[in-house]
Amino acid sequence: MSLLVVGSVAFDTVETPHGKVEDALGGSAVYCSVAASFFHPVQLVGVVGRDFPAERVQVLERHGIDLAGLEVVDGETFRWSGRYSADLNHRDTLAVHLNVFGNFQPKVPESYREARFVFLANGAPMTQLAVLDQVERPEFVLADTMDLWIDTARSDLVELLRRVDGIVLNDEEAKQLSGESNLIRAGDRILEMGPNVVMIKKGEHGAFLFSPRMRFAIPAFPVDDVIDPTGAGDCFAGGLMGYLAERGRWTVEDLRRAMVYGTVVASTCVQGFSLDALEKIERADVERRYREFIEFVTVEPTRSESPS
Amino acid sequence: MSLLVVGSVAFDTVETPHGKVEDALGGSAVYCSVAASFFHPVQLVGVVGRDFPAERVQVLERHGIDLAGLEVVDGETFRWSGRYSADLNHRDTLAVHLNVFGNFQPKVPESYREARFVFLANGAPMTQLAVLDQVERPEFVLADTMDLWIDTARSDLVELLRRVDGIVLNDEEAKQLSGESNLIRAGDRILEMGPNVVMIKKGEHGAFLFSPRMRFAIPAFPVDDVIDPTGAGDCFAGGLMGYLAERGRWTVEDLRRAMVYGTVVASTCVQGFSLDALEKIERADVERRYREFIEFVTVEPTRSESPS
Repeated sequence: MSLLVVGSVAFDTVETPHGKVEDALGGSAVYCSVAASFFHPVQLVGVVGRDFPAERVQVLERHGIDLAGLEVVDGETFRWSGRYSADLNHRDTLAVHLNVFGNFQPKVPESYREARFVFLANGAPMTQLAVLDQVERPEFVLADTMDLWIDTARSDLVELLRRVDGIVLNDEEAKQLSGESNLIRAGDRILEMGPNVVMIKKGEHGAFLFSPRMRFAIPAFPVDDVIDPTGAGDCFAGGLMGYLAERGRWTVEDLRRAMVYGTVVASTCVQGFSLDALEKIERADVERRYREFIEFVTVEPTRSESPS
Repeated sequence: MSLLVVGSVAFDTVETPHGKVEDALGGSAVYCSVAASFFHPVQLVGVVGRDFPAERVQVLERHGIDLAGLEVVDGETFRWSGRYSADLNHRDTLAVHLNVFGNFQPKVPESYREARFVFLANGAPMTQLAVLDQVERPEFVLADTMDLWIDTARSDLVELLRRVDGIVLNDEEAKQLSGESNLIRAGDRILEMGPNVVMIKKGEHGAFLFSPRMRFAIPAFPVDDVIDPTGAGDCFAGGLMGYLAERGRWTVEDLRRAMVYGTVVASTCVQGFSLDALEKIERADVERRYREFIEFVTVEPTRSESPS
């Protein structure tokens, strides 16, 4: 009962007020898979060029990520380059070279087809739909999307929403997709489009979950040393999906905890460039931060003491 | 053991996508006092002109608000006029006529001087300090402030921060006051300036509490029918202070619950113009929404069911 992750594998060049990395390991499938690997084995589907070095493969293998679905084709690996503003709240994309990712036609290996939990990282809805045609009766499928597809591939996205269990997107995208300026209405409207779960990422403001039976929201884990926000959204989805795959189910209770695990892993990710911070922790650290988070958001703790 | 509230009493003319009200009852002391009155008796200090009608006085009296400190002087009452954007996230101030509020020198009546809980609504820090000189050993003093005073009266504000127990401000103001672009650092830095409690309001994104012993954050209560956001911040402070005054103490546990009560009352306030929505509820409704909120944010509920 594995977790299948489909998305990009990339070289990222990132500049923030805290420094710069060149050609660092990145991409949605990488961040998501590593984040999920704290909880559950991951099967990755992606594509790289001949320039993708063996030591990068080893990084992923060290996290127990099954790479049977990582295609290596002629050409160069996807490269992305961006620069963050001084307050880290704005990002300019400096360059995008899709390279081999431009023609990505995900092929789900035979050994992956019974995956019960599936994460479709941000990509063309048509491509995401093509993955669904290659898996057999998954228990829970979560798809990510972005403004580009809402603008340019809306009908495919609407079709996708009918076929997945959950959708994850940010607050601006949720408003854009639904046509509602109020986030609560936006979440409700997207639920009406098909999925049983709508997760809205608000970055430093936390995340929101909508389902027909409940609404749930959490703040972000407080981080005072954000080094590089790249990958936070994919780590959120990865931690969340990894936990659900570990549980093997997605009750209300599981989803609430999964949102927190996603937030906890994402909050670690941003404390370093690329995978640096995630490489330094293990499951016990995730659990420690999970407990800190529970304390951080619990309204009615049992102990009672003076705040000063 | 009363709650003293010092601030403005105003006539508000407000336009939102949902309609318009003219010369409606408003002002920080009004919103805060009415919000607090669900929990505890309030003593108000403010000033109005001779044009302030008796029926407006009766509205406040109906909420059990002690008006011994409401001065009536020659001249006109403070008038404010504003218009909200279509998504309600932006507000243009169309007119401000301070009138009698321009020379407001708060006089705390003898009968108020033993108030143990004090809320100093947004105002010149020098004026807020002058109130502190008129009260005897309060248990907990919370002050609100704004960008104007951070810009123009910084040294007075720094002095105020040394003399109050808590400060409440919004996220942009917290960054401005502290010089930190990261909100967590901003909160920590403001704590170092003196207060034991720093509360940061983030509007639709919730609120954050910093104290030397703990950090705590909550999302906003989800409201899909926001009619008029005016007064939400003062209702947050009012609900919060009303609850603390009712408890008669401010332990960590009290502060967490108080933040939720503030959020709950503020979320009701925005569901109508002026005091309209608050006039329709009573304590039992506040408690009902409080329980809804607990369910909304609880990570580990006891029940377990499918979300679909």
